[in-house]
Amino acid sequence: MKGFFIVFEGMDGVGKTTQVQLLAESLQKKGWAVTVTREPGGTPAGERIRGLLLDPALAGLTPLAEVLLYAAARAEHVARKIIPHLEAGRVVISDRFVDSTLAYQGYGRGLDLPTLSGINRLAAGSLVPALTVLLDMPVEEALARLPARADRLERESGVFFQRVRRGFLELRLRDPQRYLLLDGRLPPLELHARILRVVEERLK
Amino acid sequence: MKGFFIVFEGMDGVGKTTQVQLLAESLQKKGWAVTVTREPGGTPAGERIRGLLLDPALAGLTPLAEVLLYAAARAEHVARKIIPHLEAGRVVISDRFVDSTLAYQGYGRGLDLPTLSGINRLAAGSLVPALTVLLDMPVEEALARLPARADRLERESGVFFQRVRRGFLELRLRDPQRYLLLDGRLPPLELHARILRVVEERLK
Repeated sequence: MKGFFIVFEGMDGVGKTTQVQLLAESLQKKGWAVTVTREPGGTPAGERIRGLLLDPALAGLTPLAEVLLYAAARAEHVARKIIPHLEAGRVVISDRFVDSTLAYQGYGRGLDLPTLSGINRLAAGSLVPALTVLLDMPVEEALARLPARADRLERESGVFFQRVRRGFLELRLRDPQRYLLLDGRLPPLELHARILRVVEERLK
Repeated sequence: MKGFFIVFEGMDGVGKTTQVQLLAESLQKKGWAVTVTREPGGTPAGERIRGLLLDPALAGLTPLAEVLLYAAARAEHVARKIIPHLEAGRVVISDRFVDSTLAYQGYGRGLDLPTLSGINRLAAGSLVPALTVLLDMPVEEALARLPARADRLERESGVFFQRVRRGFLELRLRDPQRYLLLDGRLPPLELHARILRVVEERLK
């Protein structure tokens, strides 16, 4: 494929969304065609599924139903948006992708990791990010940065997020070359500069 | 499990919903504790997912996303409703279950049947109906019985439904003992009497 697929991962509150926006802006200024997207979401059906997943009224959702909803949104996202935009030669930047399923539903909720990998392969096919930016920080600091209103996922306990954080860090070890691990506590513009440097190198 | 799980299957328009209601009424009159449910749906989350699946605005949904949405609704349905009600000793009657996924997404849309069976196993675990009532009739007659307003699935072509019909009939051959195949063109009360006779025999 001609494009370049970048994913931002990490637990809630680490600053992914801000860094996605800053990176997109800088790349666009330098002349790249950039698509910014997110999971769950990124397509009309995906955004509707996102609405279900984040709805506090559905708090009792079984972990398996939850993971299948994420997978449904992802299947739609990959087929209808990510792949077509990559094929058009664009830089596609996604706020979350398959690692979030493994970290949240696998490490966080304790679902079987091989089963989750199977579902991910089904939904994402052979698509793998060219670069995954993993933002990390201590759980308490990340949670303290969340807005007061909390959606269904953000209401989880600190222990849950400890497992999620550890999950992301372990996933990185499977393929360290593909990850850029950074401390989310760095000042946003410094963090952005470091990310941009690596992305531009890879884009050459 | 102490309860008894009955599923009604067949393409749109064959009269499943009517027969589910008639059967539930008759069994209740005879003193059985009956739970009537349906797929997709049957739980608050499941009904929300049903809303997505039947929404004409989401007509372009990829077949894979569609099947994962059905599976998410099913995982919730099995864990939160069907199994608890069976464990409470009730007769659970569901309008559609796993065969509909195989017939519609497999035979109808051409998704890989072993993949679909894997997803079904994930969502439904080892739960198998004690009896599946399969209502059948020629596609044109079934479609002619549908109300004028058509949801997303009902807008499919006749060719699609021919494949779906064939799918249901083939699925029955895998385990004929478990199926009661009946002509949906029979008068509703006669159809009901035949179904009730078999169900009462199995319930003994």
